[in-house]
Amino acid sequence: MTDDVVEHRRLIIAGTGIAGLTAAIYAARSNNDPLVFEGDEPGGQLTLTTDVANYPGFPEGISGPDLVNDMKEQAQQFGAELDHGIVENVDASDRPFRVELANGDAYTADAVIAASGASARTLGVPGEDELMGYGVSTCATCDGAFFRDEDMLVVGGGDAAMEEATFLTKFADTVYLAHRREEFRAEDYWIDRVQEQVEDGDIEIMRNTELLEIHGSAEDGVDHVTLARNDEGYPSEALDDPETEQFDFDVGAVFLAIGHTPNTGYLEDTGVELDDAGYLQTESGVGDGETATAVEGLFGAGDVVDHHYQQAVTAAGMGCKAALDADEYLESLPESSQAAETAPQADD
Amino acid sequence: MTDDVVEHRRLIIAGTGIAGLTAAIYAARSNNDPLVFEGDEPGGQLTLTTDVANYPGFPEGISGPDLVNDMKEQAQQFGAELDHGIVENVDASDRPFRVELANGDAYTADAVIAASGASARTLGVPGEDELMGYGVSTCATCDGAFFRDEDMLVVGGGDAAMEEATFLTKFADTVYLAHRREEFRAEDYWIDRVQEQVEDGDIEIMRNTELLEIHGSAEDGVDHVTLARNDEGYPSEALDDPETEQFDFDVGAVFLAIGHTPNTGYLEDTGVELDDAGYLQTESGVGDGETATAVEGLFGAGDVVDHHYQQAVTAAGMGCKAALDADEYLESLPESSQAAETAPQADD
Repeated sequence: MTDDVVEHRRLIIAGTGIAGLTAAIYAARSNNDPLVFEGDEPGGQLTLTTDVANYPGFPEGISGPDLVNDMKEQAQQFGAELDHGIVENVDASDRPFRVELANGDAYTADAVIAASGASARTLGVPGEDELMGYGVSTCATCDGAFFRDEDMLVVGGGDAAMEEATFLTKFADTVYLAHRREEFRAEDYWIDRVQEQVEDGDIEIMRNTELLEIHGSAEDGVDHVTLARNDEGYPSEALDDPETEQFDFDVGAVFLAIGHTPNTGYLEDTGVELDDAGYLQTESGVGDGETATAVEGLFGAGDVVDHHYQQAVTAAGMGCKAALDADEYLESLPESSQAAETAPQADD
Repeated sequence: MTDDVVEHRRLIIAGTGIAGLTAAIYAARSNNDPLVFEGDEPGGQLTLTTDVANYPGFPEGISGPDLVNDMKEQAQQFGAELDHGIVENVDASDRPFRVELANGDAYTADAVIAASGASARTLGVPGEDELMGYGVSTCATCDGAFFRDEDMLVVGGGDAAMEEATFLTKFADTVYLAHRREEFRAEDYWIDRVQEQVEDGDIEIMRNTELLEIHGSAEDGVDHVTLARNDEGYPSEALDDPETEQFDFDVGAVFLAIGHTPNTGYLEDTGVELDDAGYLQTESGVGDGETATAVEGLFGAGDVVDHHYQQAVTAAGMGCKAALDADEYLESLPESSQAAETAPQADD
């Protein structure tokens, strides 16, 4: 790390998912000249969804990548600057903030919006990457309705898996819920809800079962999966065990609900507060300053904050709020600080 | 009021603004079969804006009415039913809710989403109605950027007027702030901010001044206004007073910031909590149940809740959350209640 600073900006936004791009649109319109870093998943989670049917304003639907690109264009038209770059560290010990990229470049900024999202965990099994968006999904709310009357497999044992399985019963013929252990780690509330659906015949639970491979094609979607079962749990770690049974199983869709990891590593030294699952804590409430974090001048929006709703339009709403909150903060700074266009003394 | 109930619905939504329509899209997709009542301002506040440039996803912009119509079509495609009807009362003393319309019809519903918005107050002066959307606006954030380098008039003396005047200095040549009294009722914070802009020459304050008429045309926008001034305040009530001065004044845009009134009259007897300004209080927080009110099964979204951000995309985000919160509530009800399709005994 050198002391050189590439540039000082009024506002830096980390992330070009829906939250970051919406923040960029609003920040640019408020003359806050935002610089937006794409991170290592440009466009964010929505780029994984082939057909976004529930983003309000598109009665014919729109593809995730198209919606992201439209928002990029919109942000750029108002003057936002989008750049490659992975934010690796934010130094909040002094103002302006010092924003350090993975390639060694450093910037300073009067305010920062963390819109770095969360990454859905995947299994890394054969077929998963190739069929992602074609029958394999990490978001039941986004994609469940596309597989009406199909048998569906949900993988996971936590709250999200229970919630997704329950939600999918609206659409599925039968929802199969595969969990690698005997016991679920979900809340009782969710386990009870799933149990009711089991009794109704809408969900079938496959305990001690793991997904080994997904078969199908981009054209025809998921055809079937290969599963492994061992009554001791974790069958994929005991494939040679004669007690481990491997078998093919017909389903039309696979939903992975094995968790998300909010991308907050670069904020570790700032003093922000994270919840137990690693999500960035904001002021919340209703009104003024909902997106403020524990660090003055640092705001959070989108899936890096939201562990529950995680929809494109909720991320957009929060991105808008973060830009307006940041604008209010920036307007409250003394003129000299706002106008600082030269690189400050680095403090390390 | 008769005991007859037209129909029982799983979910009734009051309002077809952005929040209500987004809730309808999500609720319909969740198989909650929503019935949506338009109220007396179908489409809500956004229909007043000719060009929505900041709703994410439309780089070329979209007209307010077009965006509203697209969302209506989207909600209807997924099965939402939109109907004329002004909700006059919600009886929450028993379940299901009893929803009574101005025309005397009554419905029952297992859950209700209040997305009835807020109405911007207007002055009722000549020219105001005709030029609304053509240089007269009730939303600086929506419309300010369309009048770059023009002189602008902001009318009002509260926080919103100060905030809008301050915001508009980004775009305006000069912002004139007309207030009918000597003293502002805004917070000191906002008065200080405005004062700084006055010192910078960006805002000029016109105390004891009222707007009497707006002149212009839909084609060419606002040309000038007629103002009245009297050092004792409230000049429009003293037009015959020789101390009252009437004069024409050139401005290119007029922003009315004399408050909004959240539309909550129909909720008065439900037990919901309203804040001092009449806004519906919700659980807020981050995560699960943000849109819950003090009344179980009754959720709030959009400008009827939000006294601060009031953007199309923030309303949409909240509408989505309300539909997901309502879905979770409805799923938790006993089957018999959910399935009740017949009109219950009326309790009055």
